[in-house]
Amino acid sequence: MAKVLITGGAGFIGANLARRLVAAKHEVSVLDNLYTGRKSELEGLPITFLGQDVREPISGDYDWIFNLACPASPPHYQRDPLFTLTTSIDGMRNVLEAAKRTGARVLHASTSEIYGDPLVHPQPESYWGHVNTLGIRSCYDEGKRVAETMALEYRRAFGVDVRLVRIFNTYGPHMDPKDGRVVSNFILQALRNEPITLYGEGQQTRSFQFVDDLLHGFMAYMEAPKDKLKSFFKEKGLNIPVLNMGNPGEFTVRELAEEVLSLLPESTSSLTFCSLPGDDPKRRKPNIDWAKECLGWEPTIPLREGLSKTIPYFRAFA
Amino acid sequence: MAKVLITGGAGFIGANLARRLVAAKHEVSVLDNLYTGRKSELEGLPITFLGQDVREPISGDYDWIFNLACPASPPHYQRDPLFTLTTSIDGMRNVLEAAKRTGARVLHASTSEIYGDPLVHPQPESYWGHVNTLGIRSCYDEGKRVAETMALEYRRAFGVDVRLVRIFNTYGPHMDPKDGRVVSNFILQALRNEPITLYGEGQQTRSFQFVDDLLHGFMAYMEAPKDKLKSFFKEKGLNIPVLNMGNPGEFTVRELAEEVLSLLPESTSSLTFCSLPGDDPKRRKPNIDWAKECLGWEPTIPLREGLSKTIPYFRAFA
Repeated sequence: MAKVLITGGAGFIGANLARRLVAAKHEVSVLDNLYTGRKSELEGLPITFLGQDVREPISGDYDWIFNLACPASPPHYQRDPLFTLTTSIDGMRNVLEAAKRTGARVLHASTSEIYGDPLVHPQPESYWGHVNTLGIRSCYDEGKRVAETMALEYRRAFGVDVRLVRIFNTYGPHMDPKDGRVVSNFILQALRNEPITLYGEGQQTRSFQFVDDLLHGFMAYMEAPKDKLKSFFKEKGLNIPVLNMGNPGEFTVRELAEEVLSLLPESTSSLTFCSLPGDDPKRRKPNIDWAKECLGWEPTIPLREGLSKTIPYFRAFA
Repeated sequence: MAKVLITGGAGFIGANLARRLVAAKHEVSVLDNLYTGRKSELEGLPITFLGQDVREPISGDYDWIFNLACPASPPHYQRDPLFTLTTSIDGMRNVLEAAKRTGARVLHASTSEIYGDPLVHPQPESYWGHVNTLGIRSCYDEGKRVAETMALEYRRAFGVDVRLVRIFNTYGPHMDPKDGRVVSNFILQALRNEPITLYGEGQQTRSFQFVDDLLHGFMAYMEAPKDKLKSFFKEKGLNIPVLNMGNPGEFTVRELAEEVLSLLPESTSSLTFCSLPGDDPKRRKPNIDWAKECLGWEPTIPLREGLSKTIPYFRAFA
């Protein structure tokens, strides 16, 4: 049994992770300021809830810290860009300081967004990315990029055992119905018999990872011995572990919409097309060779199965 | 007469800027923790010296703030990478908070390093860059990148009048003889009759800007009316002014070494070749069309003239 802290634990991935850790008999604390997280998603779970902003120093003594705190969908992270930016920066710093103080092991949620609008496809961890410092997505992308750098430097300076995971598009139950992600949007639009909104021609591709696959990867990564990771990544020329986690199955946004509609044959929704937002990444697909090689991990849940496990959650919001 | 604060004002560019501002009868304060700055470079100047770290909040009321505080050469910024990173981040934040509080206008020293190892050549301001989040230069590059993003967001949220300048390789008197920059290294090696060290074949190119050209650009930029800049950059699709300042004249590092030697015919130095350090950028050259168009600015001092104005400063250290 481990003492575990999940920052941002009332968010989509956090709430799923809390369930999984509780089921595995770990002692779970959730730190969340409820800026985008919803406490209702943790209802009935035997966890300790700390109503705190990750930008404030973290006390307590934990074996594992999962650092998930940050608004992660464009409508949320663009609402208050400085909040988003400082959450990435100061949140990472507070988590690393706590780990430095207590020896906790940290798994930090980085993101495929650090690749920006990639010029290499699919993206391996060794790809440096293609990101605008001065665009409408920069508060998220650059905050997440510099958080990786900060983790690297805490590891080099103080030996903090921090592991980076670059999470690609993930979906599942407990997603915020209001956060504007493509999977939740499409499911809700279909359930409500509203038009399904695609941007551009809907030909941009995305990888869609069911959340249970991601959590399986999280656990394998967090449980991996420090020395094993160290030697694996040293061979890659890296001073810190960093793994992509996503589903390499590539779908266009339009194919996703059609899959959702085929699972909801009663829906009267049809597709509509809007103009593309600024800096919208056109293609994003993970190369997961390293996670396979290092952890023996890969996603196993097909899109259709994951969607059918996700739709019931959204019926209450339709 | 303006009340001016220069953070990092005891550094190379800061000490030159302080002289220029004093000569123009401005009231100058210098804030510097002397981590890499040298107070001796300000000797005899009628300025107020504040021995403070830019990572601490800034008090006082200024018309202009030049934010130059950050170790900027690889040996200095790699000595304590977390110091470098937090100086960029927290320094920028403190400067922006001071400007928000007082209405000061800010010129922030960004860097050509935000372009990383560029895939586009020469680099216009619209180029997003190609930077590693997890390399030995990341503490500087990513800290500087996110500082730009922070400036953008303070401008958008609070109307802070902040102007970004991406400074390319600059040289001149008051460079730190110990900071390992290529111009100072070569001059000192030649003066000491030591071998002149080139990395790789010395075929990587650099632009070399004499500091007086840069300062001329600084003044034109700082004095430009806010509305004029706003409309110029709005047309470029940007919510913040950002200008490259550098000399587009391109020289290989080997040509630089040969120019130095030709100015010091008494030197017995010869060239030696070492292996390349990690992530060393191969080519870097500014596109300065925007600065020309917006400010009517461009460098006018040729390399040979700038070097001959720089060499006398280094004789005392040889």
